[in-house]
Amino acid sequence: MIKLSRISTDSIEKILQEAQQFVDGKISKIKGDVFAANLFFENSTRTKTSFEVAEKKLGLKVIDFEADKSSIAKGETLLDTIKTLEAIGVEVAVIRHSEKRYYDALKDAKLSIINAGDGVGSHPSQAILDALTIIQEFGKIEGLKIGIVGDVKHSRVANSDAGLFRRLGAKVYFSGPEFWFDEGMLVNGTYMQFDDLVKEVDVLILLRIQHERHERNFSFKPEDYLKKFGLTKEREAKMKPTSIIMHPAPINRGVEIDSELVECERSRIFKQMQNGVFARMAILKYDLENKGFEFIDSKN
Amino acid sequence: MIKLSRISTDSIEKILQEAQQFVDGKISKIKGDVFAANLFFENSTRTKTSFEVAEKKLGLKVIDFEADKSSIAKGETLLDTIKTLEAIGVEVAVIRHSEKRYYDALKDAKLSIINAGDGVGSHPSQAILDALTIIQEFGKIEGLKIGIVGDVKHSRVANSDAGLFRRLGAKVYFSGPEFWFDEGMLVNGTYMQFDDLVKEVDVLILLRIQHERHERNFSFKPEDYLKKFGLTKEREAKMKPTSIIMHPAPINRGVEIDSELVECERSRIFKQMQNGVFARMAILKYDLENKGFEFIDSKN
Amino acid sequence: MIKLSRISTDSIEKILQEAQQFVDGKISKIKGDVFAANLFFENSTRTKTSFEVAEKKLGLKVIDFEADKSSIAKGETLLDTIKTLEAIGVEVAVIRHSEKRYYDALKDAKLSIINAGDGVGSHPSQAILDALTIIQEFGKIEGLKIGIVGDVKHSRVANSDAGLFRRLGAKVYFSGPEFWFDEGMLVNGTYMQFDDLVKEVDVLILLRIQHERHERNFSFKPEDYLKKFGLTKEREAKMKPTSIIMHPAPINRGVEIDSELVECERSRIFKQMQNGVFARMAILKYDLENKGFEFIDSKN
Repeated sequence: MIKLSRISTDSIEKILQEAQQFVDGKISKIKGDVFAANLFFENSTRTKTSFEVAEKKLGLKVIDFEADKSSIAKGETLLDTIKTLEAIGVEVAVIRHSEKRYYDALKDAKLSIINAGDGVGSHPSQAILDALTIIQEFGKIEGLKIGIVGDVKHSRVANSDAGLFRRLGAKVYFSGPEFWFDEGMLVNGTYMQFDDLVKEVDVLILLRIQHERHERNFSFKPEDYLKKFGLTKEREAKMKPTSIIMHPAPINRGVEIDSELVECERSRIFKQMQNGVFARMAILKYDLENKGFEFIDSKN
Repeated sequence: MIKLSRISTDSIEKILQEAQQFVDGKISKIKGDVFAANLFFENSTRTKTSFEVAEKKLGLKVIDFEADKSSIAKGETLLDTIKTLEAIGVEVAVIRHSEKRYYDALKDAKLSIINAGDGVGSHPSQAILDALTIIQEFGKIEGLKIGIVGDVKHSRVANSDAGLFRRLGAKVYFSGPEFWFDEGMLVNGTYMQFDDLVKEVDVLILLRIQHERHERNFSFKPEDYLKKFGLTKEREAKMKPTSIIMHPAPINRGVEIDSELVECERSRIFKQMQNGVFARMAILKYDLENKGFEFIDSKN
Repeated sequence: MIKLSRISTDSIEKILQEAQQFVDGKISKIKGDVFAANLFFENSTRTKTSFEVAEKKLGLKVIDFEADKSSIAKGETLLDTIKTLEAIGVEVAVIRHSEKRYYDALKDAKLSIINAGDGVGSHPSQAILDALTIIQEFGKIEGLKIGIVGDVKHSRVANSDAGLFRRLGAKVYFSGPEFWFDEGMLVNGTYMQFDDLVKEVDVLILLRIQHERHERNFSFKPEDYLKKFGLTKEREAKMKPTSIIMHPAPINRGVEIDSELVECERSRIFKQMQNGVFARMAILKYDLENKGFEFIDSKN
């Protein structure tokens, strides 16, 4: 799964249903020795670990790939590395890379590529797990009002979430500092003042400030950012009774969100992480079944 | 297992017995997919590898966690990382960290934390494997005279060993350079001149000089240290016929011990490493059984 | 397997036959929990990954060893590290190291050492997979003319390939820049002008320029090297109709070989990578069977 836009809405719904079955205890194990490799060219805990857990739960064998100790450090291109893994018998490569659309250079590869984040581009597996989390809460995405707030311009999560939610029938709103306003996002939703947005939305998704992607140093003090654009307790108090808070994490505590709200009643932040494993299992299984691999299902 | 002091002597004896059963060929495999992660924020060969072998022998699935490529490098706290792993479904986190009592910040975590060394604090799994090694030799700890020599002040091994051995009924003696004298240790044993100590003890435990923990450069030349505070052949010759030599390793050959003594007849240094795997299997199994996980036992 | 020269020709032929059986779908799984560790002190994608896939296909349990986070970073010697792994229960250590004949220091080790490349020394598993690739093409090595071209002096591949092919009855030719001429190679073959060699050989093996092993900066521009010593399309056109091109990879595209030839009809470069897994399975199995371990064979 490289881009959600290449996958039919039917298939996305099938993936979401299977993910929920995994949440409910279904076990699927692939037949035979099938190899996956996780190529993370950017730091990661959640995404990397949850893909690894997902792979192992599906019975895949996971190859330990370290970018900085690979032949990429000897000057080999990403394409040649991927074709090498393919020749060696790896069936699935999960890739995170700082370059937007790194996968365009890999279109000759025959192994499956699962995009685990391409720079400021997209992050499809996060959108699937976010959708799963919202559906668990509200039964569906259609008709919901979903707010995405913060560093919209640099966020691959904002990009993938907004596209998927709009497609599944939600109304999407954005907020955050003006200099992170992203005109390209207007196809998926509208901008709104944060203080208005918090009262309006069913789902409030806060984004991590992507310090590592800003050209100049981020000029706000944490307290000032929290006061102006973060979720303070005052803002949280204005949310609708049934509304929930999400964040892809890692969280800058006290910046995007008051530290005490991270585990408040409305927060689904750790629920998102739990769902991440099951969403990724469903994505991997979808991909491998399409390639003809068989799974044996059972109940826990 | 975070601190040995929180575990009853009965439980410690149960762990030691099970460890010996593993030495004797017992096989235990956990039921279902259970995940462990090894978080080593300090370099390690022995402890990390032996935990990993222990986990895999017990049938646990091991997640590859690299601190320097995780979101900790993006500023995530250790607690948030641990709660992430917990959400993702990791049941056991084995942690080594340079900060003493790092685990105090993790008391909200629900997954099991196994302390694999906290700075100059403690190293409980080393104490268990050391006890196992001594019991294999003498049948029991009670009544033995055990000497711990060297960098007592900076040694988490000294700390954990001394506490456990005293509790199990041994008499503990310390020696080493005066500036590494540690008053806090006097609750567990007494200081003695090294040349007296070697003649007295049944078990001589040499400590590694912790170069990485000294504020200023270590001012001895290796030869001088060996002569004054290390185990030379002359000192070894004065040991009782049945006495044994131990060292947690890695060894600074020619500093704490004459290189030729590392594998002499009295040395149990490699035996300690062998026992490390079995001791850690027993620790992990003890912890997981307490949480309700089941194991299937068989004989090799 | 440390050196091919220590293994009888009969055993090498047995290994090559078993490797071909793995290519043809034979499955072998080792009985019991047997541990392997891959110690790569130099960057690698192909060799490290294909050993890891080979180990996992054989049912070995693979320990994650990272040289730079091990006790080697605390000053432990390679021998003490290996003896530690041995004590911990590791049966096979696959080692790549920048030092030629690093294994001489390890002769006291009881675990199996598989040499995955020792500096400018040798690379036995590459020679086995190269032989397998050639036999798949021509049915045998005997009587073939094999050219090895490029950085002969710094290439452990050249060294191992030439020795094995000569021993199996091939005529070996070398070419490349004069300053990489290696007199020691004359026992295994003769030097020839590249433009003559391309017309003559059945198998053309191009070597990677080992930038990391050159004392001074490599003084050619890539285009100039390609024109003088690389495989251009003009040279390729002069090869015999049945001749094939090989390269151990990673490839410096546009230097040793015109980028467009990397996947041309004559190229067996990706076939070599595929064979790498099967050759390494055969090597590991050969070694472990000699130590008394049993495998259960089946057909895919």
